[in-house]
Amino acid sequence: MYISLMNSNSKIGVSVDCVVFGYDGSALKVLLIEQKESSELDRTKVQKALPGDLVNTEEGLDFCAKRVLKELTSLEDIFLKQFHTFGDPNRVKGAKDQVWLNTYRENPETRVITIAYYALVSLHDYSPEPSSFAGKAQWIDLVSVPNLAFDHNNILSFAISTLREQLEPYHIGFELLPKKFTLSQLQHLHELVLDKKLDKRNFRKNVKKMEHVVPLDEKQKGVLHKPAQLFTFNPEAVN
Amino acid sequence: MYISLMNSNSKIGVSVDCVVFGYDGSALKVLLIEQKESSELDRTKVQKALPGDLVNTEEGLDFCAKRVLKELTSLEDIFLKQFHTFGDPNRVKGAKDQVWLNTYRENPETRVITIAYYALVSLHDYSPEPSSFAGKAQWIDLVSVPNLAFDHNNILSFAISTLREQLEPYHIGFELLPKKFTLSQLQHLHELVLDKKLDKRNFRKNVKKMEHVVPLDEKQKGVLHKPAQLFTFNPEAVN
Repeated sequence: MYISLMNSNSKIGVSVDCVVFGYDGSALKVLLIEQKESSELDRTKVQKALPGDLVNTEEGLDFCAKRVLKELTSLEDIFLKQFHTFGDPNRVKGAKDQVWLNTYRENPETRVITIAYYALVSLHDYSPEPSSFAGKAQWIDLVSVPNLAFDHNNILSFAISTLREQLEPYHIGFELLPKKFTLSQLQHLHELVLDKKLDKRNFRKNVKKMEHVVPLDEKQKGVLHKPAQLFTFNPEAVN
Repeated sequence: MYISLMNSNSKIGVSVDCVVFGYDGSALKVLLIEQKESSELDRTKVQKALPGDLVNTEEGLDFCAKRVLKELTSLEDIFLKQFHTFGDPNRVKGAKDQVWLNTYRENPETRVITIAYYALVSLHDYSPEPSSFAGKAQWIDLVSVPNLAFDHNNILSFAISTLREQLEPYHIGFELLPKKFTLSQLQHLHELVLDKKLDKRNFRKNVKKMEHVVPLDEKQKGVLHKPAQLFTFNPEAVN
């Protein structure tokens, strides 16, 4: 059902960008990489960006997102979900971005639409060391994110709203927690994502009604305060 | 943050497809159009499809979706929201679709990714006569949708799941109802979208707690049964 002929938009590139959220028990973080260093680039102008890449002609979109994560951040087998496609015709045409694109692209002015994914990683059990051929990759606290390349601040904001909306209906918070967690950890994560204080008593009362939050016959170890009971998430008990 | 050079995916086309849902008080319908008639095409093989088009190089995605609706269905100023991007590398390469693409496209084998939108129209107040240069356009009951072109059955299923998920949190059901509606109409719509019977007493009890469903000092007119009270939706009262 197409009005136009194919050659009318052969000048649009397609990419995938990934917003990787991590939680380490104290802060909610996002994984950013630096635009690849080049002698031609002024180091003071190197920008941080979300990990992303152009989609190869033969690969599916989910496959591309997995490849980007693996190649740019060494992350594999984590929760990953498409959330929105960004296609402002001028999204890669800002002066700050054209300097970098001119160094790396054959057609730096070509419009690029990007399919954005968000990913979730628990930084409790292990803290993946992001590595990247593209330059340094680092976990940045959401409250200290600088100006990013392209429209990546906008993509990040949209991802945060999506995370907030999907946190409870999709039970995705458990992807950010260790396998065994305390109710304080669960509440702290919810407070960070929803950006509001929650009443401890009500929170616990509501959690106790959830069959998918399973109390374990086990307590925290190696803590200085009174050890708290541990819980785990049972995805099969979600109604 | 791109690994590949631009020319690696200049062979991907970008389109927008729209799933337009309509509700007329008895059925939930979707707007389908027929692939444009051609003497070269066997009429028995003409397929139905979602309205869509390639994205023009200079237009934004939302703009393109609005243009598609206007040009292919004459619909304007209706609720329209992006919900998912479909990018299987083989999604336009089926034999049944290549016949049609060969007639209309310069590069029929080019991969096309499509950004899908869903739209909502109340067919109560007026019943828009869809018109299309592309051929016949018609409202088809969701329960009688045939095999569609490309992966459009898959896109439609995804849109139905999205509608189901977003019905209550986003209060979008009211886009499908007349401005003044009865609680029976509201319940019937919910039953259709959620695909389950709802208990009348509980439904009404829950609705009465919603400040955004406002009772009017007015009753149905011109009905044979006992006229029911009318309600309206106040978006500003949504908490």
